[in-house]
Amino acid sequence: MLLIRATGTTPLNADDTADTARLRMIADMQPPFARLMGAKIVEATRDRVVAEVFVREELANRNGGLHGGAVMAIADNLGGTATFLNLPEGANTTTLESKTNFFAGCPLGETITAETTPLHRGRSTMVWQTRIVRADGKLAAIVTQTQLIIGKDARPRTAD
Amino acid sequence: MLLIRATGTTPLNADDTADTARLRMIADMQPPFARLMGAKIVEATRDRVVAEVFVREELANRNGGLHGGAVMAIADNLGGTATFLNLPEGANTTTLESKTNFFAGCPLGETITAETTPLHRGRSTMVWQTRIVRADGKLAAIVTQTQLIIGKDARPRTAD
Amino acid sequence: MLLIRATGTTPLNADDTADTARLRMIADMQPPFARLMGAKIVEATRDRVVAEVFVREELANRNGGLHGGAVMAIADNLGGTATFLNLPEGANTTTLESKTNFFAGCPLGETITAETTPLHRGRSTMVWQTRIVRADGKLAAIVTQTQLIIGKDARPRTAD
Amino acid sequence: MLLIRATGTTPLNADDTADTARLRMIADMQPPFARLMGAKIVEATRDRVVAEVFVREELANRNGGLHGGAVMAIADNLGGTATFLNLPEGANTTTLESKTNFFAGCPLGETITAETTPLHRGRSTMVWQTRIVRADGKLAAIVTQTQLIIGKDARPRTAD
Repeated sequence: MLLIRATGTTPLNADDTADTARLRMIADMQPPFARLMGAKIVEATRDRVVAEVFVREELANRNGGLHGGAVMAIADNLGGTATFLNLPEGANTTTLESKTNFFAGCPLGETITAETTPLHRGRSTMVWQTRIVRADGKLAAIVTQTQLIIGKDARPRTAD
Repeated sequence: MLLIRATGTTPLNADDTADTARLRMIADMQPPFARLMGAKIVEATRDRVVAEVFVREELANRNGGLHGGAVMAIADNLGGTATFLNLPEGANTTTLESKTNFFAGCPLGETITAETTPLHRGRSTMVWQTRIVRADGKLAAIVTQTQLIIGKDARPRTAD
Repeated sequence: MLLIRATGTTPLNADDTADTARLRMIADMQPPFARLMGAKIVEATRDRVVAEVFVREELANRNGGLHGGAVMAIADNLGGTATFLNLPEGANTTTLESKTNFFAGCPLGETITAETTPLHRGRSTMVWQTRIVRADGKLAAIVTQTQLIIGKDARPRTAD
Repeated sequence: MLLIRATGTTPLNADDTADTARLRMIADMQPPFARLMGAKIVEATRDRVVAEVFVREELANRNGGLHGGAVMAIADNLGGTATFLNLPEGANTTTLESKTNFFAGCPLGETITAETTPLHRGRSTMVWQTRIVRADGKLAAIVTQTQLIIGKDARPRTAD
């Protein structure tokens, strides 16, 4: 089930319904590269974006697990999506930098979960942290990335 | 032309020929994910690994350029390959961490070059820096990554 | 009050008392540079190390706040201390890499809190994340660092 | 000898003399924390800032070498100084993020050199890389940091 709502805490009303539709549209407009990674967004609110990825053979490294490059690619896409969900219409974002620590391999044939939450949502930049978790619950990697906000009057909908 | 040789500075002899064959074999054994990225290794020595990638539509971000995740994925694969080229037989490597700074977008339909050179080659870890350069010569991104060396008696062939 | 105990969850017994004394000794043996920063460790368990730092004028940047370099220095020291608390006797550690994101300035004349918790405690490396929080509760910076474990049979006391 | 000039390549003229005086003034206005680190700027152009630091006992870690925190602090200060040298009057800068890889220890009683050069000088951000080199010429650490440019019409004097 795809869970998309305006925020995690606000009760729904007419405005929220329009907002929720917009959030869903943003989350659905995944770029071609996200589709190549096979990332399927299962939750998208302003405070949390979650994707699931089946570790198919095309994503493999030399050791028969999920390639570290794929881990970073999946997380980068979520951080960009999460930023979009917090921007007013007309504003845009680009990744300034991204840092990943790897803790454990992810076996082929399993489904991993990637969860992105905010560390900072400011006027110029947002910083997101993504946890990559294996099917057995083990933390496989953590990605921290900075998004630059581009566009006139680009003020976030949510500030930390 | 694929340029693979034992080192950039040593004259060739019988041992080097065997070594060069081994380097070529390592460079050729690219994992499935590297093929998915379309990375083509055009030079592989112990001191430098270079790949070219055509920016096809499947690698696109929302803005119609090369996805940042693809940039990191391509670089990660080169750093792993470069480490392998410096390891004795039987040793293995895994990426501990990776850091990317993005400077400029890479348009679709062009070919980028990724060049990896060592910052550090030690007994426990190696650190590689990869420069992603556009067709027009502009530096698009720089990736620095740490590879952990795994395996008994894993002593690098080359030390910095 | 200085809180040092063997773990956050284990009931105390005779062995724990000896262990607690050892933890206290490690936490007390701060290097000269930690004293120069004015970092005062107020809690030290295997799962969490907390320090307080008064932002005196010597730690100032050009803008009259805590220098970013001091933020990183304080965190690096905590990550090293936290690793020591998890190592068996005879093993040692060194920082492999450290990454900091800055979110807000820390005014002079206030006391900041730095809290370090583990992301990963393995046989070869440990990864710690330190949150720098201002007196008003705002998150000022986050530091993620990798510690290499040195020394024969260096197996952590606690594994994640 | 303190070497400060408008750029490394431009011949001096009347305008350059005024510019050189301004560069010298910026380089001389080091914040209190830089003085605490004992960093002495020995060269300051728009393309390169170099400092020397004597590794005194106050900067020591547990192992009797230069504390990693001090390495990061010295580099952060140089990156900020280098950004200032490239900004028009009235603009300001703050460190967004910083990443350090450590390769070798720096013994007490020696003088290290820190050299900062640009990776990117744009309108919104600049990215600098600092190499920390020991007295024996060995690369001890490398620091990459992003500076956010603050202030109206903040356009760099030099663009990469």
